[in-house]
Amino acid sequence: MESKVNGQTKQHSLPVIDGPTNPIVTPLLTDLYQFTMAYAYWKAGKHQERAVFDLYFRKNPFGGEYTVFAGLEECIKFIANFKFTEDEINFLRQTLSASCEDGFYDYLQGIDCSDVEVYAIPEGTVVFPKIPLLRVEGPIAVVQLLETPCVNLINYASLVTTNAARHRFVAGKSKLLLEFGLRRAQGPDGGVSASKYSYIGGFDATSNVAAGKMFGIPLRGTHSHAFISSYMSLDEIIDKSLRRKDGSSNCEDFVSLVQTWLRKIQWSNSLRCIFGETNQSELAAFTSYALAFPENFLALVDTYDVMRSGIPNFCAVALALRDLGYKSYGIRLDSGDLAYLSCEARKFFQSIEKEFGVPDFGKMSITASNDLNEETLDALNKQGHEVDSYGIGTYLVTCYAQAALGVVFKLVEINNQPRIKLSEDVSKVSIPCKKRCFRLFGKEGYPLVDIMTGENEPSPKVGERILCRHPFQESKRAYVVPQHVEELLRCYWPGSSDKKRETLPPLREIRERCIKQLEQMRPDHMRRLNPTPYKVSVSAKLYDFIHFLWLNEAPVGELQ
Amino acid sequence: MESKVNGQTKQHSLPVIDGPTNPIVTPLLTDLYQFTMAYAYWKAGKHQERAVFDLYFRKNPFGGEYTVFAGLEECIKFIANFKFTEDEINFLRQTLSASCEDGFYDYLQGIDCSDVEVYAIPEGTVVFPKIPLLRVEGPIAVVQLLETPCVNLINYASLVTTNAARHRFVAGKSKLLLEFGLRRAQGPDGGVSASKYSYIGGFDATSNVAAGKMFGIPLRGTHSHAFISSYMSLDEIIDKSLRRKDGSSNCEDFVSLVQTWLRKIQWSNSLRCIFGETNQSELAAFTSYALAFPENFLALVDTYDVMRSGIPNFCAVALALRDLGYKSYGIRLDSGDLAYLSCEARKFFQSIEKEFGVPDFGKMSITASNDLNEETLDALNKQGHEVDSYGIGTYLVTCYAQAALGVVFKLVEINNQPRIKLSEDVSKVSIPCKKRCFRLFGKEGYPLVDIMTGENEPSPKVGERILCRHPFQESKRAYVVPQHVEELLRCYWPGSSDKKRETLPPLREIRERCIKQLEQMRPDHMRRLNPTPYKVSVSAKLYDFIHFLWLNEAPVGELQ
Repeated sequence: MESKVNGQTKQHSLPVIDGPTNPIVTPLLTDLYQFTMAYAYWKAGKHQERAVFDLYFRKNPFGGEYTVFAGLEECIKFIANFKFTEDEINFLRQTLSASCEDGFYDYLQGIDCSDVEVYAIPEGTVVFPKIPLLRVEGPIAVVQLLETPCVNLINYASLVTTNAARHRFVAGKSKLLLEFGLRRAQGPDGGVSASKYSYIGGFDATSNVAAGKMFGIPLRGTHSHAFISSYMSLDEIIDKSLRRKDGSSNCEDFVSLVQTWLRKIQWSNSLRCIFGETNQSELAAFTSYALAFPENFLALVDTYDVMRSGIPNFCAVALALRDLGYKSYGIRLDSGDLAYLSCEARKFFQSIEKEFGVPDFGKMSITASNDLNEETLDALNKQGHEVDSYGIGTYLVTCYAQAALGVVFKLVEINNQPRIKLSEDVSKVSIPCKKRCFRLFGKEGYPLVDIMTGENEPSPKVGERILCRHPFQESKRAYVVPQHVEELLRCYWPGSSDKKRETLPPLREIRERCIKQLEQMRPDHMRRLNPTPYKVSVSAKLYDFIHFLWLNEAPVGELQ
Repeated sequence: MESKVNGQTKQHSLPVIDGPTNPIVTPLLTDLYQFTMAYAYWKAGKHQERAVFDLYFRKNPFGGEYTVFAGLEECIKFIANFKFTEDEINFLRQTLSASCEDGFYDYLQGIDCSDVEVYAIPEGTVVFPKIPLLRVEGPIAVVQLLETPCVNLINYASLVTTNAARHRFVAGKSKLLLEFGLRRAQGPDGGVSASKYSYIGGFDATSNVAAGKMFGIPLRGTHSHAFISSYMSLDEIIDKSLRRKDGSSNCEDFVSLVQTWLRKIQWSNSLRCIFGETNQSELAAFTSYALAFPENFLALVDTYDVMRSGIPNFCAVALALRDLGYKSYGIRLDSGDLAYLSCEARKFFQSIEKEFGVPDFGKMSITASNDLNEETLDALNKQGHEVDSYGIGTYLVTCYAQAALGVVFKLVEINNQPRIKLSEDVSKVSIPCKKRCFRLFGKEGYPLVDIMTGENEPSPKVGERILCRHPFQESKRAYVVPQHVEELLRCYWPGSSDKKRETLPPLREIRERCIKQLEQMRPDHMRRLNPTPYKVSVSAKLYDFIHFLWLNEAPVGELQ
């Protein structure tokens, strides 16, 4: 793109950034009214007017008092590659009114985001209502076209990251959290996005292979109930040999070794076994799986009966593997009373350790799955359990407790004129002006308050007292002497301006930022029950200006 | 692919079908355990064993007693093109255990769905719990790999189609329903899928341009609040001319014409206007929008104050347009008391019609949006309103009332041996055997009951009495003499067999089927409050077999 600077033609070069992860994300992935508005702006000669939009949300999700911001990288990838294809233009030509003039399509064909600047809070930051997550500046017609895709890309991303963080909070730091939601996610992309953002929010791994490949997220998984019931008996196992781990020799009949161990377990007095025959299809499936994956053997033990069949069968296979030098990983429980069963399984493992003198057998890992969510994790904690690892699906990825975040995109300035959007509902009134946003930290290192100021106001300074006002409630205000000040909005897309562009960090860095940010918050903001709201404020000057503009725009009522 | 039939090598040719809509849908979009299981099957030489899996759900969503089946076309597109790329194989090689043998990857490289057969209920059919929506038969290792993507593609599709159908049911047949959910959907694909499946479920149009292009869905949209507040005053409008609709002449100053009409409205005694000055940015925005789109003018009237500003401004522009031969479409309300405002707006339009003798002005269309859902539509109906058209977003596309459907995929037969999955929760016990499914219709034309039979049982026949049994509750059974019988499962993917393949109908046909199916149901199954459950049954023979197998597999308890 070319433009004239000081009378000289200057060749702009845009930063080169990969396109969005999902090829479905194109400039047409937007609401029709963005195009009808673009046409109306163009027809009125208004399309180049410089507008500033804020993207923000009004209320934290899940009854909590915090949100994790995510989806920025995908937005920037979209913006960096924003350009219409001829095919897309042709579709618009057929779709919009026949009375639309041809010049508009020539205009559309030419646009990209070289005149757009995007300022954003770094992805993985803990954020709060009303504070712009993104500030997008540029020609109004172009910026409007970006609204829907950006809101779409940030809405669910931030929601599911926050949901993952909340699950991590309840589960505790020491547990392994696995995202198992692909099959229940809202569409294929819902699944892939869920895996990515659950990882950012503090999950350790996913079952989703495509997400593992795309984002380098660790993958986990073993077998399902169908695998167990696909076996009928041990006779099905033809190749029974298994090489010792150290390669020194072969066990020619691993099946017999398993059977021997099962009898030892059944006959042991101290184990006080409550089972007679265990299920033979299950035993065959476990044995077969162990022959395929002798390292880190993990078995799903609830297909028939956890304590009477699954656990003794698992132990027989694990002990046989141990004879050949292999250490087993543990079990997965996918139904029933997880608290009770995990404790019973743990006791059984510990008894095996004692009875057969097998070091560490009692520490066998126990994974629980089956419709887990924040509430069930909390209930498990209260009951006491022996679960080491959780597989969480439906409730995590669909954000079942609250399936959408109300992210909005509001015009706050046009042609350097501040704009306000009024509403009878005060919480829906937008905060006008191109703003800067700061996080002020207190003596104990916790963030105290976020403050928005006009663009040209002096920044808050460490050690200097500043008045922070509630944007709408006159009586709510407080002086703060910050010990540390962080500016929240940074330039992620300078367009073709000379501004320095923040790089897009790799996923692991975003995840680390998120985890660190969550740890840094004062605990009372984070608790599940009655959390304290974090304060979001405006400067005294911005406060006065908002209320001046508000009075100016609002019609005076007339009671009848 | 080649195979031997009667000792002769036969060249199979697979049906050629386009790939999935979303390129993110690849064979890697599955859970890792499908690959670990596939390896274990392969290692045990069991991978070619012929398995039959049923895909079904256990409970209707949204507290209702029906579900609309959708997502089939995408599944078939996925299955038809199921093939690993070298890149995907390489990723799996790095991901699975280093001990996995190379031969497995050669095997993976070679597989496709030529040995798989898929039977399904036609997309857009009203369906019920436990009845297989899909029956997938084929080599167990291959069919397992299809589980997660198929469940993912059907789960959300059926959920959102059902949600759309429920919204249509409450809104009534005569209302126009617009899907406006893209920005709040769970990811970009969530948005595109929502548009497609809402249309199938009975919506009339979408705002999502990408979905409009992909699926040919009608598109709707005008402008947002930002458009309104981007204008300051009428002075901004430079080109004020507008050609008459019949092309006969030009109105040189459309702005003055609008202002004249606004004064007429303000000064009219019979309109009893409650407003003084209307908002001038709003008036400028409306005027500018009308200049761009003089046909079908539609305005968002709640940016400042609906009755004091939005409606009179809209009427002034609509009356000016009418002077030039253009018919306006109407208004959109996006906040406030929609029942009250729609009635007030209607009254105002009717007064204008009377006062200025403008035929049909009173019938101006009123569109309502703003967080609508089944409950708010129901409340609007109860209060009385004048809304003609609804724009529904968040609650529709995220299925906020219930964000996931519990679709499962269960092994029912392997090597011609029926398999059952037991559970302490009876509703989770699977129905074994490769089955056929029929819908039996009564005298009044309504479907009476669905019945599952063994594969080789005689089909239910018109006029012949048949015993329908509840699959698990002994005492629940009924004789039925069907007046009409429909077989539910049809062959949508014959693999390379010679079976006749059902064609995939175009979207409009699926939509028509869905609407017809919904109309055909007995009303008490469909009502929102305490609907009657539709009966799902098994044949007497299948009943006996299920219970024989169940007793055989379940361990005998021992009370202590």
